[in-house]
Amino acid sequence: MTAAPAALGEGPLAIVCGSGSLPLAIADSVSARGRPVVLFPLHGTADAAGIARYPHHWLYIGQAGKFIRLARAAGCHDVVLIGAMVRPALWQIRPDLTTLMAFHRIVAAFRGGDDHLLSAIGRLLERHGFRLLGAHDVAPEILMPQGALGATRPNDSDRADIALALDYLRAAGPFDVGQAVVVADRHVLAVEAAEGTDAMLARVADMRTSGRVRGPAGRGVLVKAPKSGQDRRFDLPSIGPQTVEGAARAGLAGIAVTAGSTIVAEPEQLIAAANQANIFVIGAIETES
Amino acid sequence: MTAAPAALGEGPLAIVCGSGSLPLAIADSVSARGRPVVLFPLHGTADAAGIARYPHHWLYIGQAGKFIRLARAAGCHDVVLIGAMVRPALWQIRPDLTTLMAFHRIVAAFRGGDDHLLSAIGRLLERHGFRLLGAHDVAPEILMPQGALGATRPNDSDRADIALALDYLRAAGPFDVGQAVVVADRHVLAVEAAEGTDAMLARVADMRTSGRVRGPAGRGVLVKAPKSGQDRRFDLPSIGPQTVEGAARAGLAGIAVTAGSTIVAEPEQLIAAANQANIFVIGAIETES
Repeated sequence: MTAAPAALGEGPLAIVCGSGSLPLAIADSVSARGRPVVLFPLHGTADAAGIARYPHHWLYIGQAGKFIRLARAAGCHDVVLIGAMVRPALWQIRPDLTTLMAFHRIVAAFRGGDDHLLSAIGRLLERHGFRLLGAHDVAPEILMPQGALGATRPNDSDRADIALALDYLRAAGPFDVGQAVVVADRHVLAVEAAEGTDAMLARVADMRTSGRVRGPAGRGVLVKAPKSGQDRRFDLPSIGPQTVEGAARAGLAGIAVTAGSTIVAEPEQLIAAANQANIFVIGAIETES
Repeated sequence: MTAAPAALGEGPLAIVCGSGSLPLAIADSVSARGRPVVLFPLHGTADAAGIARYPHHWLYIGQAGKFIRLARAAGCHDVVLIGAMVRPALWQIRPDLTTLMAFHRIVAAFRGGDDHLLSAIGRLLERHGFRLLGAHDVAPEILMPQGALGATRPNDSDRADIALALDYLRAAGPFDVGQAVVVADRHVLAVEAAEGTDAMLARVADMRTSGRVRGPAGRGVLVKAPKSGQDRRFDLPSIGPQTVEGAARAGLAGIAVTAGSTIVAEPEQLIAAANQANIFVIGAIETES
């Protein structure tokens, strides 16, 4: 006999941890407000350092049954899936029975892009009585506010680049492409797909070095926004200090993200890096088309 | 007193040559059909080898006045602009008086993307009585036919990837982003912007090596299409043997381009490379949305 899940909003929060610093930032924030957390780090993606500070159970991708059993035993009802997850190789997946029973749905989701994969996992957990929350539901202070962080501000040219970039991301959203683009002087220099934001910024830096992108440094904007139709509980865009450093190396003027729907990792370090590089970081209002 | 331009379709064809093998392929094709050509290779971009086989005058970018004078003196009325042009650095531009008089238009075009730059140059020449032709107008055999080149054919999964890619390119077209995308299993892996097709394919190969893109080789399609609203006299997408080699290194199943609006450079070598790599190269019907 398995224990029934705890009531809504009660009991410890289960956090399934992918890679990056966000899972622990969320755990620290939730824990500081008095709610216990139980971490479920994923082998091969989660960073082991820090995990040991909380009760935790390591999982392989595919062990939905193990997760459900352990989370119920810990009295968890609410679940957050957070952190980057590299699409696993087949040999890395160790499906247990529960996962296997949902396998045709999971495989279909794999073919449909990351959003679909995450929603399929989310629906699987919901069918087993869990409630899926977004990281911003449990730790709203991690979201980008409206306006500027740091001391630098965009000028009119930067604002025109931001507007074009948001238009582009809105048009590309239905295709489950990445959530980021670099625009300089109303010209799209780079679009993120599977490579990720850091790799895209490194590409812009390379194009500047090779002369493929001309013009003085300090022009151009990195813009990130959630994909349209994206389930924001699973996959919000995020920025951190390394995003600022990448934008600086790419010779950009700044970074714009949608206010209220972008996660800011390590905000103090991010602001310090932005001020040092003289780069703006702004939360823009998301206009619906 | 300057000579009047020759009548329409008469006299030698002026070919302004950017980089790559296409300018000479066009010159050979036009010349073989009995029409003389005069080449205007651009310093810093055109390949010197082969240029000397035809009457030619080297130009710096910005020397529109020099071009107009020399082309008129040679009896040219029709002009083709062909070959890749890296956005020049300011010090590489040596504007003469004619260019300077159009300078505000040229600068505005610079800020608007490559298409606008080329159209601005085109309009400048048209105001001086020249007729701008597309490479496909003067050498129609360089365009991709409908159906497959080489021995390999796409399967149903490849065809679904091609359809998704064409939908994406249609949605992204108004933004003057690149003309190419890589899709595998209905998942957009890479979008081309300023880096060019070869660099995008190298990125997909890297993502496969690093494990960021999973799955067996022989999946995924490179799809190229003209941007919507693009003036096809200036800038048609093109493929060549190196595109096939890049697609093979990226582990793709094949290449699809729009039939009748894509230039195929060195078709024999391209087909040989495709057959050796077991990669399909197909001219797809362009559906209007």
